[in-house]
Amino acid sequence: MRRFLVVGHRAVTSPEFSLDDLAGAAGRMDILLSAANAALLVAHDIRRDAEADLLLLGPPDPPRLVRILGHRVRSYQPDLRSNAALIRKALEHGSRVEHEVAPGILASKTTFPEALDRLGPAFVYLRQGGKDIRTTAVPADATFVLSDNQDLAPEEERAVLARDALVLGLGPHAVHTDQAIVLVQNELDRRGV
Amino acid sequence: MRRFLVVGHRAVTSPEFSLDDLAGAAGRMDILLSAANAALLVAHDIRRDAEADLLLLGPPDPPRLVRILGHRVRSYQPDLRSNAALIRKALEHGSRVEHEVAPGILASKTTFPEALDRLGPAFVYLRQGGKDIRTTAVPADATFVLSDNQDLAPEEERAVLARDALVLGLGPHAVHTDQAIVLVQNELDRRGV
Repeated sequence: MRRFLVVGHRAVTSPEFSLDDLAGAAGRMDILLSAANAALLVAHDIRRDAEADLLLLGPPDPPRLVRILGHRVRSYQPDLRSNAALIRKALEHGSRVEHEVAPGILASKTTFPEALDRLGPAFVYLRQGGKDIRTTAVPADATFVLSDNQDLAPEEERAVLARDALVLGLGPHAVHTDQAIVLVQNELDRRGV
Repeated sequence: MRRFLVVGHRAVTSPEFSLDDLAGAAGRMDILLSAANAALLVAHDIRRDAEADLLLLGPPDPPRLVRILGHRVRSYQPDLRSNAALIRKALEHGSRVEHEVAPGILASKTTFPEALDRLGPAFVYLRQGGKDIRTTAVPADATFVLSDNQDLAPEEERAVLARDALVLGLGPHAVHTDQAIVLVQNELDRRGV
């Protein structure tokens, strides 16, 4: 299983956010949705061995974790707008107990450290300047931790590193969140793991 | 210079298409826009050495070529909806003579073979089963040719191969158009070319 935990620092947590301004009023929800596509989709198919875990930390009711499980989700399309509607549905569930709001879509009120503990067991933290992924062994069954267009906050970074995360880099340029996931998937695909 | 020519077989060519249904009524315009982002954007910056060339072949008035030049464009953002508005503006210009409709945005009525001849000089055709990009020399100053979620039509493929295109593959799985561009950019970044 490949898990991608993406922290959306400003992503809104109201189930009424507008589908017409995902990049603006919804707090860069477009970054989370593009990251989920990179985690879950190949041409004409869903990656059954992958999971997109989106942590929404924006107003009005954070923190919310929305998990999209490739092996259970049905009819997941690349259209960001349709997938934003899935997120809205998930945000209607604000309990701390995880609930499957639609096939393969799990929602809960969950903090970043709680999300790490739920996902695990091994962690890879993708950060510019980490060891080159092409020449480094990646733990099996890892959760890859990524941020949106802001870096992880210091306390978030500490929480990841405290769990013995392997810090990996992807190349000479810092790239967008979804681009980073594409590069990880390709590297793991090539290794056949 | 790295050029990415993406063929949108159903992408609409009316300047009045709705920004609210890019994946549906606009003929998978979302694929072209995501591809342009992969070609032009890194974290917090534009790739000045890259160019996204979008060929729109859908109704009502194809073929249209919209070129987005990284070294000239101003304030290009990742938001697909904002960029769709740029495409609409470009579609207002239907002459065969290329015209810069906004800084770094060139529009014209251009066929696929004409687009190849304008872009060149060397071509790389990305197709499942091609030689592995990681172990193959890539010509300098190449135009990378990609399709949307449909394969290139036989006559389009013939036009590319007739221009001595190098056929490259990216890994074991067929991936989305934007994902393919991300992988090419990373490989070229790593080579420092």
